[in-house]
Amino acid sequence: MKVLVAGTFDIIHPGHIYLLTEAERLGDVTVVIARDENVKRIKGHATVFTEDERKLIVGSLRMVKDVVLGDPEDFFASVQLIRPDIILLGPDQGDEWLRERLAREHSDIRIERLPKRVEKYSSTKAKALFKRITETKECRE
Amino acid sequence: MKVLVAGTFDIIHPGHIYLLTEAERLGDVTVVIARDENVKRIKGHATVFTEDERKLIVGSLRMVKDVVLGDPEDFFASVQLIRPDIILLGPDQGDEWLRERLAREHSDIRIERLPKRVEKYSSTKAKALFKRITETKECRE
Repeated sequence: MKVLVAGTFDIIHPGHIYLLTEAERLGDVTVVIARDENVKRIKGHATVFTEDERKLIVGSLRMVKDVVLGDPEDFFASVQLIRPDIILLGPDQGDEWLRERLAREHSDIRIERLPKRVEKYSSTKAKALFKRITETKECRE
Repeated sequence: MKVLVAGTFDIIHPGHIYLLTEAERLGDVTVVIARDENVKRIKGHATVFTEDERKLIVGSLRMVKDVVLGDPEDFFASVQLIRPDIILLGPDQGDEWLRERLAREHSDIRIERLPKRVEKYSSTKAKALFKRITETKECRE
């Protein structure tokens, strides 16, 4: 069973560890790392670590079998390249467009979603950290 | 060969990956995680992640065979418990007191030091990040 997980993975926190541990229970995990330019465009600020650094760190986690940089233009290119059996989404990752496109083009790929119980990690700790980093930037500008 | 690496490992960066990869080349790696209260006392500020979170994350790295929390009172207690063949130090970790104590009590344990070439990671990226976090605190107070 091939499992795809996608995300920014900028500062590794316990929520990531939980997501990848659950992914590994489903099969061999390939992680697609969001590209610097896309994160910047979507989130409005740069990552702390570059895409290559994030790839290096995520690739060092024992739950991860393979790690690749995402396609700069189209997330779906990675799905077509990796051809997973399952795409595992984190509790906060949107799925509507993905479900539509999978239904049209790859109805054999299943979407699963991590239950919310990891919330205490990803929200409290990581968001607080990101907030602090973002606030610093504003405060210095 | 048993290798001990000790540190805070608060936000995993490429310098940590390099240190642990080199440690693994020497033998089975046990990481000693610095305790929250000691980091706070020595560095003057809290970590982003708690000691248990840092332990979880470091223990998920494939180069790490075992991970333990340090002794709150005495770093040397971990050395005596783990009884490594080698203690691998990062480029910036002090060694004078350690060398003295090893010479007195465990002359069979060897100290090795990671060469400086990782500097571009640990200093530039991580220190800049920590600086930003610290500055935010000051800026908000």
